Amino acid sequence: MRNSKVVTLEEAIVKSGLKDGMTISFHHHFRGGDKVVNLVVAKLAEMGFKDLHLAASSLSDVHAPLIDHIKAGVITKISTSGLRGELANEISHGLMKEPVVFRSHGGRGSAIASGELHIDVAFLGASSCDELGNASGCPRSENAKSICGSLGYALPDARYADHVVVLTDDLVAYPNVPKSISSCDVESVVVVDSVGDSSKISSGAIRDSKNPRDILLAKQAAKVIINSGYFKEGFSIQTGTGGASLAAVKYIRESMIEQGIHASFALGGITAHMVKLHEEGLIGRLIDVQSFDKVAAESIAHDQFHQEVSAVEYASADHVGSAVHALDIVILSALEVDVNFNVNVLVGSDGIIRGAIGGHPDTAEDSALSIIVCPLLRGRIPCVVPKVTTLITPGKGVDVVVTEYGIAVNPERPEIAERLKAAGLKVVDIHNLAAKARSIIGEPDALPFGDKVVGIVMDRHGKVLDEIHNIVD
Amino acid sequence: MRNSKVVTLEEAIVKSGLKDGMTISFHHHFRGGDKVVNLVVAKLAEMGFKDLHLAASSLSDVHAPLIDHIKAGVITKISTSGLRGELANEISHGLMKEPVVFRSHGGRGSAIASGELHIDVAFLGASSCDELGNASGCPRSENAKSICGSLGYALPDARYADHVVVLTDDLVAYPNVPKSISSCDVESVVVVDSVGDSSKISSGAIRDSKNPRDILLAKQAAKVIINSGYFKEGFSIQTGTGGASLAAVKYIRESMIEQGIHASFALGGITAHMVKLHEEGLIGRLIDVQSFDKVAAESIAHDQFHQEVSAVEYASADHVGSAVHALDIVILSALEVDVNFNVNVLVGSDGIIRGAIGGHPDTAEDSALSIIVCPLLRGRIPCVVPKVTTLITPGKGVDVVVTEYGIAVNPERPEIAERLKAAGLKVVDIHNLAAKARSIIGEPDALPFGDKVVGIVMDRHGKVLDEIHNIVD
Repeated sequence: MRNSKVVTLEEAIVKSGLKDGMTISFHHHFRGGDKVVNLVVAKLAEMGFKDLHLAASSLSDVHAPLIDHIKAGVITKISTSGLRGELANEISHGLMKEPVVFRSHGGRGSAIASGELHIDVAFLGASSCDELGNASGCPRSENAKSICGSLGYALPDARYADHVVVLTDDLVAYPNVPKSISSCDVESVVVVDSVGDSSKISSGAIRDSKNPRDILLAKQAAKVIINSGYFKEGFSIQTGTGGASLAAVKYIRESMIEQGIHASFALGGITAHMVKLHEEGLIGRLIDVQSFDKVAAESIAHDQFHQEVSAVEYASADHVGSAVHALDIVILSALEVDVNFNVNVLVGSDGIIRGAIGGHPDTAEDSALSIIVCPLLRGRIPCVVPKVTTLITPGKGVDVVVTEYGIAVNPERPEIAERLKAAGLKVVDIHNLAAKARSIIGEPDALPFGDKVVGIVMDRHGKVLDEIHNIVD
Repeated sequence: MRNSKVVTLEEAIVKSGLKDGMTISFHHHFRGGDKVVNLVVAKLAEMGFKDLHLAASSLSDVHAPLIDHIKAGVITKISTSGLRGELANEISHGLMKEPVVFRSHGGRGSAIASGELHIDVAFLGASSCDELGNASGCPRSENAKSICGSLGYALPDARYADHVVVLTDDLVAYPNVPKSISSCDVESVVVVDSVGDSSKISSGAIRDSKNPRDILLAKQAAKVIINSGYFKEGFSIQTGTGGASLAAVKYIRESMIEQGIHASFALGGITAHMVKLHEEGLIGRLIDVQSFDKVAAESIAHDQFHQEVSAVEYASADHVGSAVHALDIVILSALEVDVNFNVNVLVGSDGIIRGAIGGHPDTAEDSALSIIVCPLLRGRIPCVVPKVTTLITPGKGVDVVVTEYGIAVNPERPEIAERLKAAGLKVVDIHNLAAKARSIIGEPDALPFGDKVVGIVMDRHGKVLDEIHNIVD
C-alpha cells in the first residue's frame, strides 16, 4: 500500500525522535496479559535509552521485568494508576529515586488533555490495525490473535501524544473500521507476535468471585441499591473491580425484572453480567472505557449500542460532559475505609503498594450514590479503620459502606440512611464498625514506614492528595 | 439531568464569549435543506454582533439571507468550500469588501487542525443530541425530525473550536450513542424546531441524473475504470458530485459481478448506489465523510462497516493516514477542464461563482487514478477550454478526461492511454477536444472581470492557488 506506516519496532523508535528523558506511554487493556510494555522497554534498553518516564494507564504483576530496567537507569520515573506484584513491592521498598505518580483514570485523562502530563511517544497495542494506523481492540480477520475490546485508556494518548506507534498482532486490510484509534493520529505501525494474552484480561482484581463473603456483600449491596431511592426507571450504574462489586449487578437483575425497571446505561469496566442485562433489554446502553472480560470485548466488537469512550469522556473532572457526571449509582471496593468514609484502594495495610486507583475517586465524587463494599476484616487485617493508610478517595464522595457487620451511611446523606432503615437493613455507625474490627484484631502495630517518598497520589483535579512512604523491613 | 448543557440559542451565544470580529463555523450536511446558518446568523444580527467571520464547510442557494447580514456588517468575511445561488451571484458582483476564502474539504480540515483556520465558536446542527452534548446526524428516537448521516465536516470544528454549540431538533435521553460529536467537546446544547430539511440532502450537485448525456458519460467512465489497470480485487473508489460521476458506479457493478471483483472500500460522499453494492457484498466498507442521500444516511445509522470519518481523516494533505491516500480511483465532474488538465469546479464560464471545491483537488492529487467526466459543451458553453477561468485542481493530479467526443489521457500517464486504446476506447488529444468545442461555439468574448478580488482559492497545502475577480455587467 502507498504510504504504508509499517516499520520494525526499532525503526519506529528511531522515527519517533525519542530522546533520553522523554515520556513514553502505554495502556493496560490486556491487564495481566499485556506484552507491550515489556517488549518495548526491553528494546529501548537494548538501544541504550536512559532516564525515560514511563506513563502507563496502569501496571501489574506482569511488569516485574521493569525492575531491572529501573535498576539500569532506563526508566527513572513512572506515572500510573496502579502497581501490583514484585514491581510494586520493590518500589514500596525504595527501588526508585523519584516517587511514582499515581492518578485516577479520569485524572490521567484530564492531565493528558490539559498538557500537565505530556506524552512524547505513545506505544499502543491493538488487536487489529491496518497499514495506515486505523487500530482497534477488536479482532477483524481470521488471523486475529488477541482481543481486548475497548481501547478507552489509550485514546487520550492517541489524541494528545506527539508521536504514536501502534503495535499489533494482526495487520489487516485497509480500512480497519470501525476504528478506535484514527490513522490520522498514528505515525508508525509495528507488527509483533503478540500484544497480549486475552485470556488474562479478566485477571487481577476483576475475577468473578466464588467467595461466600463476597456473594453476601454483593447481595447486601444490591439491597442497598434497590432501597436507596435511586433504583428507578432510567437509572444508571457502574460496578468497580473486586468480586463483590462486580457481582452486585447479578442480584439487582431480579428486582429490575419484577419491578419493570430498566437502566439507561451501565458505565465503566463492562462485564459479562452487564452484557447479559443489556442483551436482555434491561440496560439500554453500555458505555465502555475498559472491557473487563472476553464476553464484554466480544460484545463491543459487534454491538453499536455498546460504545467505547475515552478516559476523558469516561471520567474527566474538567469536562462536565464526561459520563461519570451522568452516573447514578456506583459500587466500589476498598482495601480500607476509615471513620470519615475516606477510602484506600492502593496501599495494603502492610504499607506495600498492591492496587490501583482506577476510576474510584472519579466515580465516587460524581455519581449520585456511591457504595463501597468491603469486608470488616480480611484474615487478620481490619478493613474499616480509624484512618486509611493512604488517602485515595476523600470521604465526601462516599455515601454508603456495606460490610458483613452492617451498613454505614455517610452522615451527609441522612435521607439514604432513613430509606435503608425503612427497608429493614442494618444501618450502623461507621465508628462502631471500626471499633468492632479493632475488638476482634486488637491494636495493630504502626507500619514500618521510612522517610523516603516512593509514591505521590494526585487527586483527579490535579492536586497532591497524599504521599506514600517507603516501607522498611 | 445534573450538569445539563441545554440552554436557549441566545444563552449559548452569551456563554460562548463570542465577540465582534471572531470566527463562527457551520457544517453543510443538510446541504440545500440547512436551517442552522440562517437561524444562528439572524440571532447574532438581532444581538448586535458585527464583523464576524463565517467559516462554513460549504454554503448554497438556501443561504441567500446572508446577503442582508453582509450588507449590515454582521458578516464581513467568509470561508467556505462553495457558494451557489443569489449569495454567490452578489459576491461575484462585489458584495463583500474582503474576498471569500475557498478551501477544499481536506484543505479546510488541515487548516483547522493546524490552527491556520481558528474557530472561536462552532454552531453544529445534529439530528439527535443528549443533554450533555453527545451528538449524531442519525435519528435516535420516535420524535426524530431529521437525518443527515455522517457529520464528517463538523468533526474538525468539534475537536478544534474553542467553544462548541450543538443545535438539535431531537433532544434524546443520555447517552446518545453511537455519537459523532463527543459531549467532552461540547459546551452548550440548543433545542430548535428544525436543524434541516432532510429531503434536500440530495439537492444541488448530487441529484441522480436522468440526463441521457450524463448516462452516456457515466457508461464511458465505467469503461475507463474497467480497462484502466486499477479495476482488480480489493480496489477502492470514490464518486464526486455531478450526475455522471455519481452514476458511474452503477455501470461498473455488472463487471464486478461478472469478473468476481470486490472493492475494499468506497469513499467520500456515499450514495444509495454505494450502499446497494455494499449490502450486496461488492464493496467491503463505506468510508463516509458526507451522506449524499437519505439511503446513505440511514445506512450509516445502523451498519458498523459504514463508517463516518472527519474531513481530516478523509482528505487532509498533512496526514498521510487520511483516506484519500489509500484511494485507487476517483470519478469527478468539472465546470471546465483545460488543455493542461487543470480543472475548474467553482466559477462558471460567465465568471460567476456557482459551485464548490469539495474534495476535488484532494482526491485528484492523492488517488492513483482520477477521472473527470465532463461534456464537451453545456448548451453554448464550452467545457474543454484552452485555459480554465479559475484554477481549482491542478492538471498534474488529473489523469483522464471523459467527454462525449472522446477520452483524453494526461501525457504523464501514457500507460493508461495504452490500456484504454487496447480496449478499443476512443482516446483523443485534449487539444483536439478544446478545438472541437471552439469550432462549434466559436471564440467566446472575454469575461467582463473587474479589478476587485472577490475570492481567493487556497490549495490543499495552504497556499494561494488562484484569485477570483468581480464580474461587471
